[in-house]
Amino acid sequence: MSILVVGSVAYDTVETPFGKAESVLGGSASFFSVAAALFAPVNLVGIVGSDFGEKQLDAFRGRSIDLEGLERAEGKTFHWQGRYSYDLNSRDTIRTDLNVFEFFKPRIPANYRRSEIVFLGNIDPVLQLEVLEQVAKPRIVACDTMNFWISGKLAALEKTLARVDVLLINDAEARQLSGEWNIVKAARVIRAMGPRTLVIKKGEHGVLMFSEHGAFAAPGYPLESVFDPTGAGDTFAGGFIGHLAGAESENDQNLRRAVIMGSTLASFCVEAFSLDRLLTLTRREIDERFLHFKRLTHFENL
Amino acid sequence: MSILVVGSVAYDTVETPFGKAESVLGGSASFFSVAAALFAPVNLVGIVGSDFGEKQLDAFRGRSIDLEGLERAEGKTFHWQGRYSYDLNSRDTIRTDLNVFEFFKPRIPANYRRSEIVFLGNIDPVLQLEVLEQVAKPRIVACDTMNFWISGKLAALEKTLARVDVLLINDAEARQLSGEWNIVKAARVIRAMGPRTLVIKKGEHGVLMFSEHGAFAAPGYPLESVFDPTGAGDTFAGGFIGHLAGAESENDQNLRRAVIMGSTLASFCVEAFSLDRLLTLTRREIDERFLHFKRLTHFENL
Repeated sequence: MSILVVGSVAYDTVETPFGKAESVLGGSASFFSVAAALFAPVNLVGIVGSDFGEKQLDAFRGRSIDLEGLERAEGKTFHWQGRYSYDLNSRDTIRTDLNVFEFFKPRIPANYRRSEIVFLGNIDPVLQLEVLEQVAKPRIVACDTMNFWISGKLAALEKTLARVDVLLINDAEARQLSGEWNIVKAARVIRAMGPRTLVIKKGEHGVLMFSEHGAFAAPGYPLESVFDPTGAGDTFAGGFIGHLAGAESENDQNLRRAVIMGSTLASFCVEAFSLDRLLTLTRREIDERFLHFKRLTHFENL
Repeated sequence: MSILVVGSVAYDTVETPFGKAESVLGGSASFFSVAAALFAPVNLVGIVGSDFGEKQLDAFRGRSIDLEGLERAEGKTFHWQGRYSYDLNSRDTIRTDLNVFEFFKPRIPANYRRSEIVFLGNIDPVLQLEVLEQVAKPRIVACDTMNFWISGKLAALEKTLARVDVLLINDAEARQLSGEWNIVKAARVIRAMGPRTLVIKKGEHGVLMFSEHGAFAAPGYPLESVFDPTGAGDTFAGGFIGHLAGAESENDQNLRRAVIMGSTLASFCVEAFSLDRLLTLTRREIDERFLHFKRLTHFENL
């Protein structure tokens, strides 16, 4: 089952208390694709500038990531620069140069239009809708968004959400989108907008999922050293969607395992800058940490 | 197996976005005792003033809570007044009148000195040590503390911790006590101070336990309406210790179930002011929510 992802491919310059990485590979679609491609073929739609190098492309090559949809435009690649606080719990954006991404109009290659799963990365909801117009009815439409679109393009976002099966956002976004502080109430409001499954990411505090099967809660994996949180949310989405692509159905147990798989990959992502840790990840390491998640959370009934 | 608890019995005046309760029963030993007595006999050591009424005593009577150690002194009972923010995630103390609690010197009745489990509530660590001097070697010594003692009486606290088996504190206290921001590193530092089991309470984000058996993580129970968080931490401790008192050993599975039992009782506590919800709780309601915790967190291996 193939996955179509539309989102940003970028250069990131990141400062953490542990060091600085200059113009390394980033962007939501990059993290998502490398994570999801561990489980299923990925069709990547995005845009890069003429400065996007062979070395960066090599991160995608040799994996089941199709690059026909990765447009190359005259100009510079999207560049984001940020600095994390000493505790890694907040970050300041120092600079955002949209560059070629500013005029990104996703064009879905003919080969991609029958992808069974579509992941709409965090882009303008108007573009998200245009993507859905270009594809045949997928088995699963999943979606991310952010505060900027919730406050600035709510009407368009609501149209997108009406066609979304799985929404993956963080707790602050869930509160903003629903107008409810309490997360259980927020989930009810958002699920009434369309997504039958809502996955709320809480960073180090884990994930809450609300679906037709009820609620599922997963803790964050307690890591002794978090090096760089950039891309953790997109990597989570890649692991979550990737697991579903490889599963026979989206039943309750597969959705739950998908949350744990997303959390597992995200816990590796933050151990190094950029996609460095994801690119060396083995299936055995993934399975071991998944099992460790089980040990971390398991308890016997009374 | 009987539990000795030493801590505060108080009047609380609490304002939340949902209402105000004036001079209702509170205090760490009150919440702890009512929760723990659901599982095992509790011996309560504390102090109240001459204004402490029969109605308040009725909360303890008819339960397996022994009141021989509840001293009555001339003067007024400890009174705390606080106000919660609209999101219930922070609170301001408006007033603290220590009253008779200011000169509290715990005296352990002869009948209590062979209690198998001792819970040292959040009082001056010098007094916590004096309690330990008065009892025979208990099977388990558990302990709570707070920022005020960590910054003001660290040397005495370290002496207490050297004799403690289980320390139950919140995440901010764990960071302050260890000097480590990362919670895994913080746990290692604190366990080296004495407690072989460390339970870190994170409010709505759940609980992390570090023991000789490794780490265990439990989410917070997603409640649609949280009415008053006062006493949730002490109620957690009561459920945790109560469950261990009723268990055959402190093996890994019993410690994990104890965390879930503490979380279960705490989730009821916050549904109403004071001890109101705890006082009407039935064994069936507890078992149902414990089971719901299992459904909330369970996933199958790959």
